[in-house]
Amino acid sequence: MPVLVMKFGGTSVANLDRIRRAAKRVGVEVAKGYDVIVIVSAMSGKTNELVNWVGETSPLYDAREYDAVVSSGENITAGLMALTLQEMGVPARSWQGWQVPLKTNSAHSQARIEEIPTDNITAKFGEGMKVAVVAGFQGISPEGRITTLGRGGSDTTAVAFAASFGAERCDIYTDVDGVYTTDPRICAKARKLDKIAFEEMLELASLGAKVLQTRSVELAMRYKVKLRVLSSFEEQSDEAGTLVCDEEEIMESNVVNGVAYSRDEAKMTLISVADRPGIAATIFGTLSEAGVNVDMIIQNISEEGRTDMTFSCPTDQVARAEQALLAIKDQGELNYAELVADTEVAKVSVVGIGMRSQSGVAAKMFKILSDEGVNIQVITTSEIKISVLIDRKYMELAVQSLHDAFELEKA
Amino acid sequence: MPVLVMKFGGTSVANLDRIRRAAKRVGVEVAKGYDVIVIVSAMSGKTNELVNWVGETSPLYDAREYDAVVSSGENITAGLMALTLQEMGVPARSWQGWQVPLKTNSAHSQARIEEIPTDNITAKFGEGMKVAVVAGFQGISPEGRITTLGRGGSDTTAVAFAASFGAERCDIYTDVDGVYTTDPRICAKARKLDKIAFEEMLELASLGAKVLQTRSVELAMRYKVKLRVLSSFEEQSDEAGTLVCDEEEIMESNVVNGVAYSRDEAKMTLISVADRPGIAATIFGTLSEAGVNVDMIIQNISEEGRTDMTFSCPTDQVARAEQALLAIKDQGELNYAELVADTEVAKVSVVGIGMRSQSGVAAKMFKILSDEGVNIQVITTSEIKISVLIDRKYMELAVQSLHDAFELEKA
Repeated sequence: MPVLVMKFGGTSVANLDRIRRAAKRVGVEVAKGYDVIVIVSAMSGKTNELVNWVGETSPLYDAREYDAVVSSGENITAGLMALTLQEMGVPARSWQGWQVPLKTNSAHSQARIEEIPTDNITAKFGEGMKVAVVAGFQGISPEGRITTLGRGGSDTTAVAFAASFGAERCDIYTDVDGVYTTDPRICAKARKLDKIAFEEMLELASLGAKVLQTRSVELAMRYKVKLRVLSSFEEQSDEAGTLVCDEEEIMESNVVNGVAYSRDEAKMTLISVADRPGIAATIFGTLSEAGVNVDMIIQNISEEGRTDMTFSCPTDQVARAEQALLAIKDQGELNYAELVADTEVAKVSVVGIGMRSQSGVAAKMFKILSDEGVNIQVITTSEIKISVLIDRKYMELAVQSLHDAFELEKA
Repeated sequence: MPVLVMKFGGTSVANLDRIRRAAKRVGVEVAKGYDVIVIVSAMSGKTNELVNWVGETSPLYDAREYDAVVSSGENITAGLMALTLQEMGVPARSWQGWQVPLKTNSAHSQARIEEIPTDNITAKFGEGMKVAVVAGFQGISPEGRITTLGRGGSDTTAVAFAASFGAERCDIYTDVDGVYTTDPRICAKARKLDKIAFEEMLELASLGAKVLQTRSVELAMRYKVKLRVLSSFEEQSDEAGTLVCDEEEIMESNVVNGVAYSRDEAKMTLISVADRPGIAATIFGTLSEAGVNVDMIIQNISEEGRTDMTFSCPTDQVARAEQALLAIKDQGELNYAELVADTEVAKVSVVGIGMRSQSGVAAKMFKILSDEGVNIQVITTSEIKISVLIDRKYMELAVQSLHDAFELEKA
């Protein structure tokens, strides 16, 4: 039998009624002849409650105990989903991570999947079981302790199962009906994409489009797992949602396929830094050790042996960055006049695999923003993406203008 | 190091503050030099919530999935307790049932413990860990699936650990401060017992005194585990609570040590049953197959080849008993004129190991009740117990009169 993986997020299993609705969707796929592996999240809100209890108990908690506590939400949903399917007459049983066993490394609370043996579940399919319900987000370490895969880890669980079982497709059921050209809450003309390439989805996911966890897209790309994102709240056809797939499967594509944004960016500038070899290594080595995720970097032209160095990082890491840079200044390892943090900025990006073969996209983007009077503060590019840092108050305007000018509302 | 087992029930770990208070008690024992095994229940209310979800999902549920769902509450508490102890500077870690592994048979939702290997936890004690926090109520079946031990199963978990590890004592922390001569809510003169014999506790537990699960007392008696019941809400000395122990350890004991009662009893009478060999086997065989727990049985003197047969059973099993007996009447296997159910009765019992060596206790009990005008409907006795079924409205009066007359308020 072909295998299908179906993943239901927290809002899709938020209560017994929604679990029943999700189970009906599973039943439809079973009726088509699939052996189905269902990956479930915890009921929405449950994991946050557990995370808060751990934080209240122990601010600097033992990650092994954190994992033992926060993984329990998924176990509840897995059992209830199996019971619901049985009640509908569909042979099903639940698996907790350690029962599969989904083997991970020992990096508790951020563990990486190492192996998913398939014999256990495949044997049950052979005995007539139609659905294996697996608790997402969790695994077991070489020491036999429970691990979790980080927030959103159930997406990664689903893709890893699809890769291990050679599944025909991995359907991610969520509270939106697919991947959009941009956020419909900001731009009314946003259009749902029928297909999107892995590389594009990866850029969008890492740029803050929260439909899929970045790691799950990376994994799907590496193992060529067809990934479909669709809503658990609508009647579904085989063509519903958005298919995330290899770019070869997409016949025609716009040059730009999506406009992404992120509000949580801060711009930091070190004014008048001594411009000598190794200075960038000192600054960004220090920030990396302090756990600051630096995104964009810009260095001004040097005057009289001194320069300004600008970088962006998430807003909630500004204090940590300031502390780290002040410390090395005090220790005499770095000399600068001033450190200026601007948290009133936002990042806006255009993404599209068509950029590879078409030039002039960056120029067009800058022109559009310029026409709207939006000043660009920092620029970064990749092969299929151009990002700019701008004043936050222009963020919505920039997204809408770019969406219009690149005609993203047209398929 | 000597090992101590401490078990905390649901009200003792109902929230983070109470977990902290319980952890402090554990810290006190660690400071005395014990290696401590802590058994935790789910936060009060959690297990009921999970049981209800399962029942709503599937009225005739798969007990294996039931176990997977309802066992999760204990996992949460175990992790939080370990974190709390670590936060206090006490080296601790949590174990879920399958990690120990606490091996049970496959009787899901009512599983029996088969083995608790000690090597895993003992090795950690050897490495300097001071507290092993174990999720109560759960184990793992030979098939590798999660099992639960039935309601109140955490008491049994605690005693089984104490037996396996040769613990010096098993302390059961609960919301009452010990075992009383009778229910203080009914009899203001009720006195807390410092010691009670296993056999007496077993009778009291099975008669409805809900302090300890019956199975845990059986297990403690078989393996001679010293069991102490005490409150988690009071400052404790070494002599606090009630010690449940071998009768040899109790120097002097009253003839009667406790008065127990049960409201949930019904009296059923089959009127005019043919009195022939095998008729009792037919009746009680049928009831047993229907899952009716018959307690007391009385058969009247036969007249003209017919007799009345009376028995008692829990109130909530009356409908089931009626159905079963009507069915065999319809099939012609049993002939009776009428089946009368009286749910307005209660059972009152006096318990004491001193009865073994002192006669006249039954006569004294009947005289006391007679003096109060209480009519006795059914009587059963064991070596250390006399139970009577009476009109429910006299229950409190009977308990108080017996407590007074046997002078249970005096040590």
